Amino acid sequence: MPTVNAWAAPSATEPLVKTTVERRDLGPHDVLIEIKYAGICHSDIHTVRGDWGPQQYPLAPGHEIVGFVAEVGPEVTKHAAGDRVGVGCMVGSCRECEQCLKGNEQYCLKGFVDTYGAVDADGTVTQGGYTTHIVVDEHFVLRMPEGIPFEAAAPLLCAGITLYSPLRHWGAGPGKKVAIVGLGGLGHMGVKLAHLLGAEVTVLSQSLKKQEDGLRLGADHYYATGDPATFETLAGTFDLIVNTVSAEVDINAYLRLLKVDGVLVNVGAPAEPLPVGIFNLISTRRTFAGSTIGGIAETQEMLDLCAEHGIASDVEIIAADQINEAYERVLASDVRYRFVIDTATMQ
Amino acid sequence: MPTVNAWAAPSATEPLVKTTVERRDLGPHDVLIEIKYAGICHSDIHTVRGDWGPQQYPLAPGHEIVGFVAEVGPEVTKHAAGDRVGVGCMVGSCRECEQCLKGNEQYCLKGFVDTYGAVDADGTVTQGGYTTHIVVDEHFVLRMPEGIPFEAAAPLLCAGITLYSPLRHWGAGPGKKVAIVGLGGLGHMGVKLAHLLGAEVTVLSQSLKKQEDGLRLGADHYYATGDPATFETLAGTFDLIVNTVSAEVDINAYLRLLKVDGVLVNVGAPAEPLPVGIFNLISTRRTFAGSTIGGIAETQEMLDLCAEHGIASDVEIIAADQINEAYERVLASDVRYRFVIDTATMQ
Repeated sequence: MPTVNAWAAPSATEPLVKTTVERRDLGPHDVLIEIKYAGICHSDIHTVRGDWGPQQYPLAPGHEIVGFVAEVGPEVTKHAAGDRVGVGCMVGSCRECEQCLKGNEQYCLKGFVDTYGAVDADGTVTQGGYTTHIVVDEHFVLRMPEGIPFEAAAPLLCAGITLYSPLRHWGAGPGKKVAIVGLGGLGHMGVKLAHLLGAEVTVLSQSLKKQEDGLRLGADHYYATGDPATFETLAGTFDLIVNTVSAEVDINAYLRLLKVDGVLVNVGAPAEPLPVGIFNLISTRRTFAGSTIGGIAETQEMLDLCAEHGIASDVEIIAADQINEAYERVLASDVRYRFVIDTATMQ
Repeated sequence: MPTVNAWAAPSATEPLVKTTVERRDLGPHDVLIEIKYAGICHSDIHTVRGDWGPQQYPLAPGHEIVGFVAEVGPEVTKHAAGDRVGVGCMVGSCRECEQCLKGNEQYCLKGFVDTYGAVDADGTVTQGGYTTHIVVDEHFVLRMPEGIPFEAAAPLLCAGITLYSPLRHWGAGPGKKVAIVGLGGLGHMGVKLAHLLGAEVTVLSQSLKKQEDGLRLGADHYYATGDPATFETLAGTFDLIVNTVSAEVDINAYLRLLKVDGVLVNVGAPAEPLPVGIFNLISTRRTFAGSTIGGIAETQEMLDLCAEHGIASDVEIIAADQINEAYERVLASDVRYRFVIDTATMQ
């Protein structure tokens, strides 16, 4: 059972520190990955701080992972030593239920195994990507095409697929007007991917502070939600709105921006229920939906498409000893648009 | 300008009384209908009492109307004197917008003209079906097939289409598990129509009081929502839930009864916003939607299908002077399942 370097939270209230975690010996279908970069997702912070429930510590978070295959188990067929690969938010699922068989491992009826902080099939608690190495079943290991720069690829595995899946599911494409609410880690991938899929893209951000960025990333229009006129101007405009904001927003104001049959999808998960005015749904057959990450095949499809079109995340590379400072900057929305840890700094 | 007998509310706070209303002279595309039966819809009560905004009085409600064509304007081609016809919740729309051209007159971008209490194209306020005659543009007049008993046909024009449209839109049919919440005027049509479309139908009603009725109407299963075990037993069961209840319900409890990708559609419109727990949507890509009545072509499709299969509403026929008493019984849910006024009693 190899011991590897890691940065982990010793408790819900302490900063992350340099430590080690154990990795299992390679099983027949396992892949050992030497991690090169790991993205910092807002949910890493929520999880290690116990905001979403109690955790077992020490806990190394991280579910945006890229690296090279170091070794494979004897029955692995999908990957070979030296391959560029990635791992996202899932490292296991039942593989047998209706949803797994459909390729919706993220909606596995028995629940998927989170990359960190979850009880794995062998009873151990999973440890994430803020580590130098990880062992993952080959099914949950993605091929990372050469076309995507390694350091900018990691955030595709969570932020990217979290936006790509609802955009695809609800038909973002040519002739469709799509709004992305919030221009953070998730939102900036939403703009890039909706534009890539051919939709007319509008950013709805609190202020016009990041307008230049938004247009550079592929948005056709940019409006400030702090300006009440925005909600009058854009009433009844969009086929699809993807809300990436985890804070509570006036969801009815956004519902009224949808066309007849329009869909508002939350990928951000505010802790408190959002009050939905039913007339806003009934009057124009609007729908309010939610979506989480995406399936393995769908993630691979997104990676291949991104590679083909030179799309990746906008990142700021940090050393491991900057993680705690980066957390504070994520909480202050002070990052354009994703921190990525260079795991070479964990040696 | 013909004057016709009517029962109308003199104000928001007085009972309905016998009176008269004016009907316009026949325009080139108008149809004069001699009304035989008019259904009493819960929304008649809300509207005349000003619950949904101020009204102009006297106001004759009623948007479930059947009768015979008495006379047609010179350019009418769809109907002829003597035809059995019906009129539902709409008597006008712009006929030009994207939604009207799609056959979604109920989602007309300029707003459809309600059968009563709305300002019509000529500036007059529309008067509904609690009258002996009505004049309506031929486009909004439905053919009522012989196969449907006249007195049981009226409620199809609102209660029927309000359920048929979402059932069709969200694919109720063979292999689909559909739940109907509430077994009142809307719900009893939901059970009949979902069963007719081939779905496996479950009634979710407050108690088991109407269980025998529900099974007779076509339900395969019947559960009491007053029993907390119902929500455990049925977790993750349904492809589609249509909620006909206008009172506030714990919408999250119902969302958790949906499968992955399941849809909860509200056709009832509670006045207060419903708090939606976002994890209930995100965790399984569920959607929460709304729907109102249906388009004219869709309504005709439903009427033809009902005639073919001998489906109509379960009604209690009343005389006009029983309307006020009937209103109290509707408010007390004491009707199985729709009151219908015999307009012969208005002479």
